Amino acid sequence: MSQPPAPSERSRVRRVADRGRYDEETIHAIVDDAYLCHVAFADAHGVHCIPTAVWREGDHLYIHGSNGSRMLKALTAGEACLTITHLDGLVLARSAFHHSMNYRSVVVHGRFETVPAAHKAAAMDRFMDHIAPGRRHEARPGDENELAATTVLRIPLAESSAKIRSGGPRDDEADMSRDVWAGVLPLVTACGAPQADGAEQRLEPDYVRAWSGSFA
Amino acid sequence: MSQPPAPSERSRVRRVADRGRYDEETIHAIVDDAYLCHVAFADAHGVHCIPTAVWREGDHLYIHGSNGSRMLKALTAGEACLTITHLDGLVLARSAFHHSMNYRSVVVHGRFETVPAAHKAAAMDRFMDHIAPGRRHEARPGDENELAATTVLRIPLAESSAKIRSGGPRDDEADMSRDVWAGVLPLVTACGAPQADGAEQRLEPDYVRAWSGSFA
Repeated sequence: MSQPPAPSERSRVRRVADRGRYDEETIHAIVDDAYLCHVAFADAHGVHCIPTAVWREGDHLYIHGSNGSRMLKALTAGEACLTITHLDGLVLARSAFHHSMNYRSVVVHGRFETVPAAHKAAAMDRFMDHIAPGRRHEARPGDENELAATTVLRIPLAESSAKIRSGGPRDDEADMSRDVWAGVLPLVTACGAPQADGAEQRLEPDYVRAWSGSFA
Repeated sequence: MSQPPAPSERSRVRRVADRGRYDEETIHAIVDDAYLCHVAFADAHGVHCIPTAVWREGDHLYIHGSNGSRMLKALTAGEACLTITHLDGLVLARSAFHHSMNYRSVVVHGRFETVPAAHKAAAMDRFMDHIAPGRRHEARPGDENELAATTVLRIPLAESSAKIRSGGPRDDEADMSRDVWAGVLPLVTACGAPQADGAEQRLEPDYVRAWSGSFA
């Protein structure tokens, strides 16, 4: 199956270019597996790299925060880059040089736009569905003041690229007989036992019961 | 115990400022727990946010890559920001507005410098010790060509800040009696069963035996 090309020159994976992927299915799968992204932007102090919560709706990635956030203010004023990375393992090769890591990442270049007030509540509902499906019918919804204090931004996935490494080490032939263990030490994001708040124990909803022991 | 202040204006945590920490012990602990960082930098195409392997030696963070890497070239030409984030859990509050995440992050502003050729091998040894203690005595060390093809950069931790959230939800008093489960869904980076490369089974070194079931 032929793969789509990079959507732009700055989105093209150059370093180990055959790890680059530009198809929507691959990009959505990596993004939907994440709760967190890192956002790069520049302001008068220089460049910044800030972690924040992320979710997808359709062809956009969404972030949110307080109206007072310097990041959110700066993001509406210029170009940005949003990156999501899952580290899947340490790759131990027979030579120091060929050691590597297994990972899945998506890099998005572009410009954030402000989600209009009329769509903010729906966007935040979508975020809640990403975190805990169904919970938005249980928790108290945001009131007028809370929504007014929140800024929601979105960036199109139009200019995005994925980069993936998987599998074992790729050693030089001459090193294959070396007497050293080689392989992968996997890393997994696991879900720990839910910790109820306070003394009062309420019935655990499905998404809480399903959490422990599963993998995020 | 009094806490040190922010080392610079751009390093000062503003949003929920009481989550900011500037002491070396806190910053080193978060950094040493990581294999991966995100680096923000700007070039002619705009800002970029790229994931890469990271390790610490003393008061510097180190990254490395091929001499041909556009990121490494750009990093020696201007200011950068390096960020490490551990996501520790999803915080489910009684109101949508107070939902949050538990995390530990470090943001470093500054300028990378090139590690001189004479110190490159020692820096890469240190990296291997971070990944797999003792392994540098087993794997084939980098030869002259491999080291020459590798660029190692370091950035001082002088201008860095940590930000931490932990614990349960902080709800409004009026929401405390609401009939909804509230608490934390923890996220943990877990180590999966080591996957040996190929058919040949060599003795697993200590760092491989200790991997499975432990937490990174």
